[in-house]
Amino acid sequence: MSALSPHELECLFDRLWPLPRSITGPGFRESLCILEELVPFVRHEHKTGSQVLDWRVPQEWHPRAAWIEGPDGQRHCDFAVNNLHLLGYSTPFRGELDLADLQAHLYSLPEQPDAIPYLTSYYAPRWGFCLSHREREQLPPGRYRIVIDSELSDGAVISAEAILPGDEPGEILFSSYLCHPSMANNELSGPLVLTSLYRALAARPSRRYTCRFVLGAETIGSICYLARVGDHLRKELRAGFVLTCCGDRGHLSYKRSRRGDCLADRAALLALRDRGCEHEVIPFTPALGSDERQFCSPGFDLPVGSLMRTMYTRFPEYHTSLDNKSFISFEHLADTVEAYLAVVEALEANRVWRNTCPFGEPQLGPRGLFRSLGSQKEVERRDTAMWWALNLADGQHDLLAMAARSGCAIADLAAICAELASAGLLVEEG
Amino acid sequence: MSALSPHELECLFDRLWPLPRSITGPGFRESLCILEELVPFVRHEHKTGSQVLDWRVPQEWHPRAAWIEGPDGQRHCDFAVNNLHLLGYSTPFRGELDLADLQAHLYSLPEQPDAIPYLTSYYAPRWGFCLSHREREQLPPGRYRIVIDSELSDGAVISAEAILPGDEPGEILFSSYLCHPSMANNELSGPLVLTSLYRALAARPSRRYTCRFVLGAETIGSICYLARVGDHLRKELRAGFVLTCCGDRGHLSYKRSRRGDCLADRAALLALRDRGCEHEVIPFTPALGSDERQFCSPGFDLPVGSLMRTMYTRFPEYHTSLDNKSFISFEHLADTVEAYLAVVEALEANRVWRNTCPFGEPQLGPRGLFRSLGSQKEVERRDTAMWWALNLADGQHDLLAMAARSGCAIADLAAICAELASAGLLVEEG
Amino acid sequence: MSALSPHELECLFDRLWPLPRSITGPGFRESLCILEELVPFVRHEHKTGSQVLDWRVPQEWHPRAAWIEGPDGQRHCDFAVNNLHLLGYSTPFRGELDLADLQAHLYSLPEQPDAIPYLTSYYAPRWGFCLSHREREQLPPGRYRIVIDSELSDGAVISAEAILPGDEPGEILFSSYLCHPSMANNELSGPLVLTSLYRALAARPSRRYTCRFVLGAETIGSICYLARVGDHLRKELRAGFVLTCCGDRGHLSYKRSRRGDCLADRAALLALRDRGCEHEVIPFTPALGSDERQFCSPGFDLPVGSLMRTMYTRFPEYHTSLDNKSFISFEHLADTVEAYLAVVEALEANRVWRNTCPFGEPQLGPRGLFRSLGSQKEVERRDTAMWWALNLADGQHDLLAMAARSGCAIADLAAICAELASAGLLVEEG
Repeated sequence: MSALSPHELECLFDRLWPLPRSITGPGFRESLCILEELVPFVRHEHKTGSQVLDWRVPQEWHPRAAWIEGPDGQRHCDFAVNNLHLLGYSTPFRGELDLADLQAHLYSLPEQPDAIPYLTSYYAPRWGFCLSHREREQLPPGRYRIVIDSELSDGAVISAEAILPGDEPGEILFSSYLCHPSMANNELSGPLVLTSLYRALAARPSRRYTCRFVLGAETIGSICYLARVGDHLRKELRAGFVLTCCGDRGHLSYKRSRRGDCLADRAALLALRDRGCEHEVIPFTPALGSDERQFCSPGFDLPVGSLMRTMYTRFPEYHTSLDNKSFISFEHLADTVEAYLAVVEALEANRVWRNTCPFGEPQLGPRGLFRSLGSQKEVERRDTAMWWALNLADGQHDLLAMAARSGCAIADLAAICAELASAGLLVEEG
Repeated sequence: MSALSPHELECLFDRLWPLPRSITGPGFRESLCILEELVPFVRHEHKTGSQVLDWRVPQEWHPRAAWIEGPDGQRHCDFAVNNLHLLGYSTPFRGELDLADLQAHLYSLPEQPDAIPYLTSYYAPRWGFCLSHREREQLPPGRYRIVIDSELSDGAVISAEAILPGDEPGEILFSSYLCHPSMANNELSGPLVLTSLYRALAARPSRRYTCRFVLGAETIGSICYLARVGDHLRKELRAGFVLTCCGDRGHLSYKRSRRGDCLADRAALLALRDRGCEHEVIPFTPALGSDERQFCSPGFDLPVGSLMRTMYTRFPEYHTSLDNKSFISFEHLADTVEAYLAVVEALEANRVWRNTCPFGEPQLGPRGLFRSLGSQKEVERRDTAMWWALNLADGQHDLLAMAARSGCAIADLAAICAELASAGLLVEEG
Repeated sequence: MSALSPHELECLFDRLWPLPRSITGPGFRESLCILEELVPFVRHEHKTGSQVLDWRVPQEWHPRAAWIEGPDGQRHCDFAVNNLHLLGYSTPFRGELDLADLQAHLYSLPEQPDAIPYLTSYYAPRWGFCLSHREREQLPPGRYRIVIDSELSDGAVISAEAILPGDEPGEILFSSYLCHPSMANNELSGPLVLTSLYRALAARPSRRYTCRFVLGAETIGSICYLARVGDHLRKELRAGFVLTCCGDRGHLSYKRSRRGDCLADRAALLALRDRGCEHEVIPFTPALGSDERQFCSPGFDLPVGSLMRTMYTRFPEYHTSLDNKSFISFEHLADTVEAYLAVVEALEANRVWRNTCPFGEPQLGPRGLFRSLGSQKEVERRDTAMWWALNLADGQHDLLAMAARSGCAIADLAAICAELASAGLLVEEG
């Protein structure tokens, strides 16, 4: 058991891709079943109509079939062909309309004439079809027959949760959402990275912090989740991350938490620095975003950021049928998993040390702490980390603060701190 | 009653221009009479010889006539022609001097040969004449007759004050000075802007904060004013501004208060940002400045900055006869008034809100808080402000802090906060 | 008695240059004797084997003669010719080796083929010779006779200390080291600057702060010194400096203390600013440095920086025979002394003043505080300093903070503060 290979990610992707996911309903449940082959999720259900924080849980949506048939008998916007064709949460409808009247129910993107837009209407009852602008313009005038075989009925919003226990108090949260139908970067990439991360972390003999993996519906799902465990997270959460837009070919991006310099932010940004990869730092905004809008609402104000590749809304394929398999790369997906694992390493390594011999430098020679193995560059790198660790181990700097001030890699500092601790020169601050 | 139009400002300017103002005396009183047609100033008098803070109030100066007459009988430096010709506070003198001896009493600017300099000697008894260097160089040698018909006698320094009451505790101060003779930018522009501001704010049905408008003599006037109300201002003043150099054609400038980031500074700088106009930010200095040197003396340390156009000493016409009507523009004067009104808006809008529904985002749909009226850009701007307002309404951020962090316009935030408050989602922090 | 002239520095240099200094032994003692002609050092001895902080004092090293003789009878690496030829602290050895076996004891720099490297092995018993790579490559094959007439025996590490008492509590530390053999910038320059500084400061009728001058061995010397007076310094030290690399032709550099903005840092950086000379600011690092590594160890964390010219390791001549007399300039050495004296001036001038007349500006005319002597530029500079001093004398800003915020020179502020204090307008904050 370990992180999924690009090939494994692709196989998983291919199985999940066609399922008609939404914030509730069979597509969501079927997708979850597939992921449960890899992750032992526990499902928490929030019944339709129940109050969660300020929200009321909506009904479940069961889309079965939907299309429009033109005057020439040709079928358009067939849900069976592409589940983006049906406006999410469309109410059932059967009837006939002239094209002119039908237009009010059609959605397309004149500026991206080949793309089918992804649209939903979860809380305002509506029906509609999404199609490419090119197709829309070629619809012949006349009478159209509309079929939407869907059902809205009481059910539940599901939060799926898996927990890997840790050795010490404190938790790390990974949250993604499974409510988007056939789109690749936003948003099969998030559940795929979450699954792979779970596999990699579960494979370890132990973890410092308890890791929580949460998969649900965007917004209403995290509202439900916070209603249940928000108070717990306020006490226990050390760092959390929203996994979204993880698979495109762009460089990594990190959107800061509301606090702006919380542990999640510091660990993520230093891990990215140490990887030496180009990356962008995006300030927190509540005006555009995913579930961090809930986690970082002022009442919770949790230490939650988001490590992505190209952020939602910044790629033109966003929320259209062009966000498909060809838009993403499974190597990039796997790289995002690696980046998250590096962040976990940083969090696990982040201890506060105290130099037991703080008056002057300790005499290292008799303790056998000078190394000559390795290239001169390696020795210098190790020694640099050693001097910084001894100097900043004052009980005030955590390892990330040492890494930030010294410029030394987190891994180098962690290694030397362990060595110095073995030699009795550092002790962990109580 | 509202802000003065450029034409009204010009008419007022033309009436005030010729009067021989100084820190005391008839020119000051007559100028004040004209402004009192528009502003119900209350005059506070500080008698000659009385102690005000560390200062002693000087005598009043009554210049009546002054000139020098050359050996050829030609009259030079006639106070009746340009009141800058007479050194301010010149002691009376009648006598004859050779040109060589007269030179010690003449002041000109070799590097600006066409400009008459503006000079004064309030506290050291002296007499003298100011003239253009070109004229000075053409004075024929020989005997000159000097006439200075002036009088220094006990009287008073006058502070004129008008107060517009506000609904809540706290005050805003606007201070300018009326002691400069025939100069336009420095300094008829200040009293003109102050008058127009008074008219605009008085026209409102109500104001949040009490507004104080003060007009006096530079330095000694603000010393007198602070001696009387300084202790009150230390308790009540939220923000204050020195109005000077408000009429030239340059862009706006803001000189920070001594504190550097007080409410006056924050409101002024964000209002300027929101106007989208080019502007310069000038750090506080006590070494060069107007009455903010008194307001920002370390004992008072009041939240007082100065919103200007081109700052004193930075335009070559400064303190010369070239700072005249043609140097200023009444459109720019009116624009400065608008800028000050925008600052007042920012101050009035600056409340601290608390989100009543801070755990997760509130469900806005059922509350009818999503808007679709307006262009997509307008809707986006409103929604952006809404998300920021909800997120930062934690009882810690005032509206200006929200505006600074979010980049949203103060006006947009103020509007949405009012709307959210109506919906019960925000309450003002007590 | 005053600072040494470039010529005096050169004479002293020439006497010290040939002595075979190390961290202990006769070369160190003889060098100290020469400096004691100018500075009344008190010697503190730390006996071999005694525990100092975490360290144990090593034996004394007495090198008497050393060379290798080739198969052709030619003598190489003669210690009498250049004391860098013998690896510092080489154990005694007499014997014969083939060139191939001898190679393990030879040290050279292939990338600087004409330079003899400077190497030591204080704590690991070894013998060896340093030579230019060019000479090494020309050594003929065959049998070599090796002679190292040295002795390691119990003795002491010496810290030399001279103290100039001051009038007020608080101390300034100047520390350098005398343990390097024939090298000029690193490190005869440090003891030379320290000696000159002592002379200059001793010549003064009085000093504000007690000045301590310490000369010893790098690392072990400062460890010994801190073992003796570290606790005292933690209470009394206001600012300290490590003197090293003071004589090359490069511009000045300042390496900050661990604290980063302590009084030593602020005084040094503002003194450099006021000198108007190009200079570099180097952040603190414990990974590369001299005795500040001990002074700035986390237990002591003393306010100690280092004002240098070109920092160790940044000039290719560093720790080789190329760091010789021609590499340094005695004018630059004297300039470094001047820079240190400017820092002392800044420290001595650094008082906290309180304006006795803080409400409004004081009326300066009646107090005779306006000056007209001097050029307009001088008058303006003085007046600018005066306004800033009055404004910032709030009991919170020390003089260095005034200098930093105002941009005024420390000397100008100190002069005007003294004048304002004489006039009763400032009093020193108790």
